[in-house]
Amino acid sequence: MTGPVDGVPTFDEGFAGELRPGRRPVVLAVDLMRAYFDPESPLCLPSRECLASGARVLAAARAHGVPVIHTRVEFAPDGSDGGVFVRKVRALEHLYGGGPLSELMPEVAPAEGELVITKQYASAFFGTSLASTLVAKGIDTVVLVGVSTSGCIRATGVDAVQHGFIPLVVRDAVGDRTPETHDANLFDLQAKYAEVVEEKTAVAYLGEQR
Amino acid sequence: MTGPVDGVPTFDEGFAGELRPGRRPVVLAVDLMRAYFDPESPLCLPSRECLASGARVLAAARAHGVPVIHTRVEFAPDGSDGGVFVRKVRALEHLYGGGPLSELMPEVAPAEGELVITKQYASAFFGTSLASTLVAKGIDTVVLVGVSTSGCIRATGVDAVQHGFIPLVVRDAVGDRTPETHDANLFDLQAKYAEVVEEKTAVAYLGEQR
Amino acid sequence: MTGPVDGVPTFDEGFAGELRPGRRPVVLAVDLMRAYFDPESPLCLPSRECLASGARVLAAARAHGVPVIHTRVEFAPDGSDGGVFVRKVRALEHLYGGGPLSELMPEVAPAEGELVITKQYASAFFGTSLASTLVAKGIDTVVLVGVSTSGCIRATGVDAVQHGFIPLVVRDAVGDRTPETHDANLFDLQAKYAEVVEEKTAVAYLGEQR
Amino acid sequence: MTGPVDGVPTFDEGFAGELRPGRRPVVLAVDLMRAYFDPESPLCLPSRECLASGARVLAAARAHGVPVIHTRVEFAPDGSDGGVFVRKVRALEHLYGGGPLSELMPEVAPAEGELVITKQYASAFFGTSLASTLVAKGIDTVVLVGVSTSGCIRATGVDAVQHGFIPLVVRDAVGDRTPETHDANLFDLQAKYAEVVEEKTAVAYLGEQR
Repeated sequence: MTGPVDGVPTFDEGFAGELRPGRRPVVLAVDLMRAYFDPESPLCLPSRECLASGARVLAAARAHGVPVIHTRVEFAPDGSDGGVFVRKVRALEHLYGGGPLSELMPEVAPAEGELVITKQYASAFFGTSLASTLVAKGIDTVVLVGVSTSGCIRATGVDAVQHGFIPLVVRDAVGDRTPETHDANLFDLQAKYAEVVEEKTAVAYLGEQR
Repeated sequence: MTGPVDGVPTFDEGFAGELRPGRRPVVLAVDLMRAYFDPESPLCLPSRECLASGARVLAAARAHGVPVIHTRVEFAPDGSDGGVFVRKVRALEHLYGGGPLSELMPEVAPAEGELVITKQYASAFFGTSLASTLVAKGIDTVVLVGVSTSGCIRATGVDAVQHGFIPLVVRDAVGDRTPETHDANLFDLQAKYAEVVEEKTAVAYLGEQR
Repeated sequence: MTGPVDGVPTFDEGFAGELRPGRRPVVLAVDLMRAYFDPESPLCLPSRECLASGARVLAAARAHGVPVIHTRVEFAPDGSDGGVFVRKVRALEHLYGGGPLSELMPEVAPAEGELVITKQYASAFFGTSLASTLVAKGIDTVVLVGVSTSGCIRATGVDAVQHGFIPLVVRDAVGDRTPETHDANLFDLQAKYAEVVEEKTAVAYLGEQR
Repeated sequence: MTGPVDGVPTFDEGFAGELRPGRRPVVLAVDLMRAYFDPESPLCLPSRECLASGARVLAAARAHGVPVIHTRVEFAPDGSDGGVFVRKVRALEHLYGGGPLSELMPEVAPAEGELVITKQYASAFFGTSLASTLVAKGIDTVVLVGVSTSGCIRATGVDAVQHGFIPLVVRDAVGDRTPETHDANLFDLQAKYAEVVEEKTAVAYLGEQR
């Protein structure tokens, strides 16, 4: 099969069927916080490209009445709601008690009326009421932008398809620490869980709504 | 069988087996907010007795090093994270955007280091990371106080047993709008899901810890 | 307010808002097994009325192309997947290893192509992939029939609204051990979680589909 | 930091903290079915090494009284409980209605009394009562063997840590279609979610129990 994105091949017949996005999408902006873009932050990523691309996807959604939901990470001041996860990833302690690193970046700041969900784990669906909100709105498709590809994007994409939604991962609007990690996770997502699409494809799709 | 609490009989052999509480309890104080105790609130309950009893249970927990977790309800300013639930219970709009009615009562104010979980639904386990927090702490038993018996206490008790925890519901420390509703729900909880115990039993159990 | 069903009043302003059922319903037949209707079974209920009513609701669904999903209960041979629940309700041991009591009643036997979900807990949503199946089908409304009102129907109704679906509980097609328990739980469901409707209302609603 | 396994380096300070396994482990054997090892199966993997290693880990668990739980995949005859996932991975149709490809391999056949969980999705925790079973048993650590590294092992490892359990992934006892995919996913697991350990380390750890 020829995947919908160059450079994201698939390796086996029977995998990577093409999911057709539905008529009721949401754009989910995952963890576009200062923690990942502020050069002072120990979690800072090497590039801001996904932030700019993500902002363009949000703009397209807003222009066509597609709802936008944001996630951010915040733990209790002592991290006690981070369970085993914060023992494994010690750098998450910078998100204890909220604070500036938990703030969303100005480029993708929530517009009036857009829901912001606080989460503690990798998947935006885990330990949050996100799935219920999507069901109550009749959403069928989740367009994913944000960080990081191997972390919260991968986990959220897997959970999206597990919950019954069609995940579209916008390749240009998700980012990671290394190109190898980014590519390996897009490969797995395209093979088994999601449609990995370019920004222009996502923007065109959002433009068809309403 | 003779239930552990007078007045909470059971009706059928094979139901209402007696669960033995474990050695790693938590006290979960559910939704003891101004919304349910402030006479100005449209959600105000007719009695404050459960609040006083709940405060005594919390004191016993703190005296013996048993962790305490609190829940409160808060929705987005437009209620969009309340899904179908806020369409059914319109009075929940008083909890949109947080505000004074979402504040915990001073009698049961969280002590330093106690986790406060914000929830949108009836069960404290639903759409929150509570279960993960309990698992990571090795908790086996959940002592329930709070309101309302037929609402969040019932839903949380059912979910506690479903998640694999032993629920103890403190009869005196939970309350509802009418005695009939209160009693009917304690009956069901004792028959199928939980141990309904008196305050003194709960306090004695907490006193045995550590 | 005047509830949609006589005899299921509500008690407080702000509760019991009327949910309007959607255009994509499913009928969920909960645990209509021999365990609850076979006179030899220790779990047998006093009446079969809900079975007859449930069968009529299923017939209406099938006549109008509304999907039907069934649940049944089965535990591992030693009950090890029943967790704390089977310690509390010892009578569930009759469902260890499947067997005749886990079989669905002939009056409501699954038709060709109807999904049968095996569950271990009270809520049909708990520990099953039911919610994912409903989301992937675009379902918005869950019409509930089955047993028992205070057990699996109540727990499933609460979870349905928590997951973002509109629950309709068909009063005549759900049953319990005593009229008091039945009525008390319908009262709570109508007040906070679901629309309790008569069989004829449910049948008329299903007749409007497609 | 030096990771516990050669060849699974980590790339950033603050990631890859070392989780210490607990005293109450379970071994979870994920999807070791004919589908992945029968040369006639379209899903067959290129190597059986993980099967042999997995069998040795199971033997160590059984020798020391550590519980073993197995998962297998089975969908309804028409795949209707596979939601969006089976639309994406068409090869899963070989698991519709159970059948020989859903059978566990003889090398790792369940022993008397070992729980076998049927699942529909990638994570063994998703849409199953696994987490409840582990909580009710007081389990704190999940030792993972099975297939595939990039699919069900990755998804289950992420969900294990999200649910509050400490995941150990046995490098030699998990397998995938290509070495690149295998290694990339072990890298991510070690960096953020789990301890990736060699078979001998896992066997030694199991030998310390009871």
